[in-house]
Amino acid sequence: MTPHEARSRFVETRVARLATSGPQGPHIVPITFAVEGETIVTAIDAKPKRGGPLRRIRNMEADPRVAVLVDGYDEDWTRLWWARADGHAVVVGSGPSRDHAVALLRARYPQYRDMPIDGPAVVVKVERWTGWRAAD
Amino acid sequence: MTPHEARSRFVETRVARLATSGPQGPHIVPITFAVEGETIVTAIDAKPKRGGPLRRIRNMEADPRVAVLVDGYDEDWTRLWWARADGHAVVVGSGPSRDHAVALLRARYPQYRDMPIDGPAVVVKVERWTGWRAAD
Repeated sequence: MTPHEARSRFVETRVARLATSGPQGPHIVPITFAVEGETIVTAIDAKPKRGGPLRRIRNMEADPRVAVLVDGYDEDWTRLWWARADGHAVVVGSGPSRDHAVALLRARYPQYRDMPIDGPAVVVKVERWTGWRAAD
Repeated sequence: MTPHEARSRFVETRVARLATSGPQGPHIVPITFAVEGETIVTAIDAKPKRGGPLRRIRNMEADPRVAVLVDGYDEDWTRLWWARADGHAVVVGSGPSRDHAVALLRARYPQYRDMPIDGPAVVVKVERWTGWRAAD
């Protein structure tokens, strides 16, 4: 799969998974996201009510390297595919960059239009798009 | 979501994602898998033809900590859920433990019955099952 096609798969897919590294080992969580150019944005819906920042946020603040994955599963394994974006994440608590990320998310997901997004945004500068499909 | 329910979600789901950490940062890839007790097994279908072991294997041999995720996306966000297993992985190139893992995979996925599984098995001892669902 070409980098161009891998990026297209992100544009077409509604849910991805974000992997980070930290002192407790790798962490992985599903995310909603939007793609703009060579950037993937996501956000934390709600500030945690206790315990400080979420583990994914602590991880990215200490080590900004992230991997983001979309994939398609089908019982017909000739239809399997995945696409991955590797890059560096910036956690943005406020300001125009956060507002822009939130606007992109609200534009992509009608579900966000009626709910608050109170936590930080995460802006991933993608350095590499890779992918694979079984039918190649 | 209780640990018991998180584990049940793994048993019911056909594809997961495996996150590892390594010198190039976090890595993430979709996997087929089987659950037995407090263990998740997966395998590499084919030995890489060049370039040595896959990155996920090199990562686990250097740092056995892994995270495995299953999730359900739905445009009705009251139906979102995910479950995660955190544990330690052992890469098994041959022997009874590898054969047992392969047998579990072939039992779960008819697709594997007619294809070779030439690479190592990965046996994850799960230390923690966690999960979340929107409707909680």
